[in-house]
Amino acid sequence: MRSEGRGRPRLEQSRRPGKTAREEILDAAAELFTNQGYASTSTRAIADAVGVRQASLYHHFATKDDILDALLAGTVDAPLKLAGELLLETGPAAPRLHVLIVSDVTQLCGSRWNLGALYLLPELRVDRFEQFRLRRAVLRDHYGNLARQVIAECDGPPDADDLPFRLVESAINRRSDDNGCPPEQPWMIADGALRILGWDRDFALMRQGTSTRLQIEPVNVSA
Amino acid sequence: MRSEGRGRPRLEQSRRPGKTAREEILDAAAELFTNQGYASTSTRAIADAVGVRQASLYHHFATKDDILDALLAGTVDAPLKLAGELLLETGPAAPRLHVLIVSDVTQLCGSRWNLGALYLLPELRVDRFEQFRLRRAVLRDHYGNLARQVIAECDGPPDADDLPFRLVESAINRRSDDNGCPPEQPWMIADGALRILGWDRDFALMRQGTSTRLQIEPVNVSA
Repeated sequence: MRSEGRGRPRLEQSRRPGKTAREEILDAAAELFTNQGYASTSTRAIADAVGVRQASLYHHFATKDDILDALLAGTVDAPLKLAGELLLETGPAAPRLHVLIVSDVTQLCGSRWNLGALYLLPELRVDRFEQFRLRRAVLRDHYGNLARQVIAECDGPPDADDLPFRLVESAINRRSDDNGCPPEQPWMIADGALRILGWDRDFALMRQGTSTRLQIEPVNVSA
Repeated sequence: MRSEGRGRPRLEQSRRPGKTAREEILDAAAELFTNQGYASTSTRAIADAVGVRQASLYHHFATKDDILDALLAGTVDAPLKLAGELLLETGPAAPRLHVLIVSDVTQLCGSRWNLGALYLLPELRVDRFEQFRLRRAVLRDHYGNLARQVIAECDGPPDADDLPFRLVESAINRRSDDNGCPPEQPWMIADGALRILGWDRDFALMRQGTSTRLQIEPVNVSA
């Protein structure tokens, strides 16, 4: 029998990305949750996929819900932090919203597993996930806040303030339908979100600014 | 024991909307799938919720997948038919896309259960649901077709043609997050989709035309 206690060196070669057993468990769980479904995945199946015993898995996560919660947190932590910073800055809101969207969609399209596909699961409605639901609601609120500023700046349609957040999350659906997003997805969505709020100025310049700030290679405006 | 064979009158008062046992089964299944999850719902639970024996349920649907398939078909049938008709019409594409979106979002927001929340389930990737996936892909293609015509008419951003379909389906997410959509949701999304394609003319007139055609009460432009 292999010994897999916490802190002990693993006897088997690691099969998954992740420097620690915890990261490997998260990666295996994300694969199973997104490919087989959350309800249909047992902690036993996760342990098997990592190559550890179930008891070892429980050293890291007490329940399957704890694993899902850690994975979901990983999808909102970075955009929430960036949105908080951007809201504190001054100047026009349009470039700040553009930066937030390009960064967020880049992450949603580029993460190893399409975890956003789990957002609508009824299983998330229980108390255990209240923290996650709250954090995603705060992120939505930050998007709405920036969007309302853009609308005010452009005299745009007042009731469109929820749509940028929706467009961003639609990358999850596209990724699911097409097994991936095209490289221009973040830029297309960021530009689209500004248009929807009534902003219609120099998109090439806007992309350049966002590219510089995020140090993400720019994708040229095709229009 | 109650007798519940096909065609026999039910001995128990119907508890659900739907004129036939089949409709009641679909309604109960939709409630359970959207509230408890697809994998977690047994055919036994569905039969119990309708108040029939499991054997009676099997007269109508051989498997749980058959029930889900019938429910999913109900979410794309009407927009697919309307989109097919609109594509055959002549004249500018913008009003036709606007009509399709208002009609589709009205249905997504107003149906008894938020079935679109099931679109991203990994369970849908099996062959059994290929027909549904195909029909949804055709609907997406029809949206893309109209969107490309609008882009051409307005000299809009060429890579934005998938976004109207995404915006429409985002009503599913909003409904899930807020336990419903505001009455202006279909109009807000239809206007937003046109803006994203570069259309920026008289939205009040556009809404009036769509309202007349669909015989849906207009919601006033707030801008």
